[in-house]
Amino acid sequence: MRRSPLSRRAVSLSPALPAAHFPSELHEPVISFDSGFAFPGILPDLTAAAGVALNRHRAESLQYSGRRGLAPLRQWIAGYMSERSSEVNPDDLMIVNGAKHGIDLICRLLVDEGDAIVVTAPTYFTGIPIFRSFGVKFIEVSQDAEGLNVDELERTLAARAKAGEPLPKFIYDMPDFHNPSSVTMSLRRRMALLQLAARHGIHVVEDSPYRHVRFEGEAIPSLRTLDRENLVIHVGTFSKLIAPGLRIGWVSAQQELLARMMQLKSDGGSSALLQRTVVEFCQSGAFDEHAAKVRRVYGTHRDTMVAALRTEWPEISFGVPEGGYYIWLTLPERVNGDQLAARAADAGVNIIAGSRFFAIPRDEAQRYVRLTYSHNAPDAIEQGIVRLARVCRSLKT
Amino acid sequence: MRRSPLSRRAVSLSPALPAAHFPSELHEPVISFDSGFAFPGILPDLTAAAGVALNRHRAESLQYSGRRGLAPLRQWIAGYMSERSSEVNPDDLMIVNGAKHGIDLICRLLVDEGDAIVVTAPTYFTGIPIFRSFGVKFIEVSQDAEGLNVDELERTLAARAKAGEPLPKFIYDMPDFHNPSSVTMSLRRRMALLQLAARHGIHVVEDSPYRHVRFEGEAIPSLRTLDRENLVIHVGTFSKLIAPGLRIGWVSAQQELLARMMQLKSDGGSSALLQRTVVEFCQSGAFDEHAAKVRRVYGTHRDTMVAALRTEWPEISFGVPEGGYYIWLTLPERVNGDQLAARAADAGVNIIAGSRFFAIPRDEAQRYVRLTYSHNAPDAIEQGIVRLARVCRSLKT
Repeated sequence: MRRSPLSRRAVSLSPALPAAHFPSELHEPVISFDSGFAFPGILPDLTAAAGVALNRHRAESLQYSGRRGLAPLRQWIAGYMSERSSEVNPDDLMIVNGAKHGIDLICRLLVDEGDAIVVTAPTYFTGIPIFRSFGVKFIEVSQDAEGLNVDELERTLAARAKAGEPLPKFIYDMPDFHNPSSVTMSLRRRMALLQLAARHGIHVVEDSPYRHVRFEGEAIPSLRTLDRENLVIHVGTFSKLIAPGLRIGWVSAQQELLARMMQLKSDGGSSALLQRTVVEFCQSGAFDEHAAKVRRVYGTHRDTMVAALRTEWPEISFGVPEGGYYIWLTLPERVNGDQLAARAADAGVNIIAGSRFFAIPRDEAQRYVRLTYSHNAPDAIEQGIVRLARVCRSLKT
Repeated sequence: MRRSPLSRRAVSLSPALPAAHFPSELHEPVISFDSGFAFPGILPDLTAAAGVALNRHRAESLQYSGRRGLAPLRQWIAGYMSERSSEVNPDDLMIVNGAKHGIDLICRLLVDEGDAIVVTAPTYFTGIPIFRSFGVKFIEVSQDAEGLNVDELERTLAARAKAGEPLPKFIYDMPDFHNPSSVTMSLRRRMALLQLAARHGIHVVEDSPYRHVRFEGEAIPSLRTLDRENLVIHVGTFSKLIAPGLRIGWVSAQQELLARMMQLKSDGGSSALLQRTVVEFCQSGAFDEHAAKVRRVYGTHRDTMVAALRTEWPEISFGVPEGGYYIWLTLPERVNGDQLAARAADAGVNIIAGSRFFAIPRDEAQRYVRLTYSHNAPDAIEQGIVRLARVCRSLKT
């Protein structure tokens, strides 16, 4: 039977790529360095917070909630995001179902089919199919040790203007512990990016899931709090701070943009039960204790992976992340990232090939793979690196 | 400063219409007959179910979950949806963040800007802006006491074919306790609709939040279980069965469509914590008890509203719903629904004007208003009807 055709959006996505593995699907000998799951040992006890939500606040938690999200949760987040005094206003915030939902809403708000957006090369691999589903054209810009290369972007925009091409709708970046490169953007570069954005009137999407997962060094102010033009749209989440299973994140932006985004948030509001559970946990003092534990535990995992890489696999190179979940490896010449990822999976270690992190395919992508240190205990991290180094050497001979 | 323009999608939505009122915003004398909130007195105690999710299943509940959703929950829903034996397969199901999220994903899957879809006149008022945000063209079809007028739709499709216009991408309907008309589609009409869909290869979206909120009479098989061509996409939700605050619903469809929809579900999976809480509640036996209470309590609310309308406001007419949450009133001539809704709000009763339920504006819409009986206790229902009748009479003189 003839059937109605699917949308262009639906057929633009390639048939399902292998997804990251869920912990519950893994069997013992498999070590998963692929996706950003939490370490099971630090998943917090939310029973008390949920109990308060389900009993004291039952009439609120179990009804529909407004699209903007619960006021006390927005209040808490505004305080958390504010870096000097209280420069973030709870009314400049809306609650979403995790950061990816925020990214999706920003695309709905700004992007028509055929519009251009700017992404770094490499960029967040789960973001790529979301952007692609909106029919975007990608403009890639490189990174260096200070982050997104603003001068290069300025030249690209000038060339586009000369050619009569429209401006991109937004610049998407992760200035803190970039996924996958783990680079944190310097203050100088942040200021340069904001100036460029202001000159052209382009929005900057600051995706910042790892901002508070910092192991050492001083935090650099967020683009959102540095922004004087209200062009930055900041996306945050509790996935890395408390637990991914909550699916509660937020977007902070100019109020007029938020009002439009709320109209496009067609989900009947985010779960009031989850929102109340999160705010009870945050306000109870348990959050601070938990956040400290997250930093301590993942710092140890990072140290373990870095030491194992240096000892067991000295022929690869990488930058040491000051925070976040990931290490971005540059492979020895002649080793191909896609092939290494495939062989590593056969040997019981899941990693993600660098090619998955480039919006526009390029040969250079084969030089990289991404490892996650969040999910595994230190002994499994060591064992996984030993296996990876062995697989890598077997490819070279 | 010049800024990047918003998407066509964003500017297509009219500046925020007044939303339904949240119970927490209401002050005592206001009686809310506007939106489909649950009656606070029947919101269940989910503490035990959530406790199991948060402790025994912590490593699953607090991690990311797969986009398809938890297997035991899909298993339970498949049993719940099956009407004879086990004709619904758990693999034909995916979990979504409430029914509205399901509708949104179906649009993503099937609709390009400018495509046509079929809706009843009147139709679900929250659906209209979702559809509009995808740039659809609406084809309206009327209803009679047996539901969607299939003969009329057949003539419309024939005329479109003759004019060389493309087929609509789907037919959207609520066959059980239609919102707002409360009509339930007869078996004969269901079969005719499925035959029409099969002849043309058009998908039917069966939005069915109220199917199990039946006060009397026999259920008629769902379109999804009657469908032999796998064209029906069924949307269900726990919002009306357990609590709206959960934001857990489902879509049941052909597996190939679901696979594509999962690619377009860019939210990092629905909350595993909520999914596990729901399935623990459902499997514990508490669900059956609760569902019986929902039917009993809302049946009493329906009876109260019907009796009050007949006694206090005999000049209006309406069909008595066998289930669901709503009564659709036909107003006396010379009374205008928009005006009545505005004046009623001034008098402390919130209702929704009929004009909100038509995808294409028409004068006839002024003849209707929708009342919700779910949310209020019987004495408030009576008091609200007394006030409404008084306001209505004041408009006529």
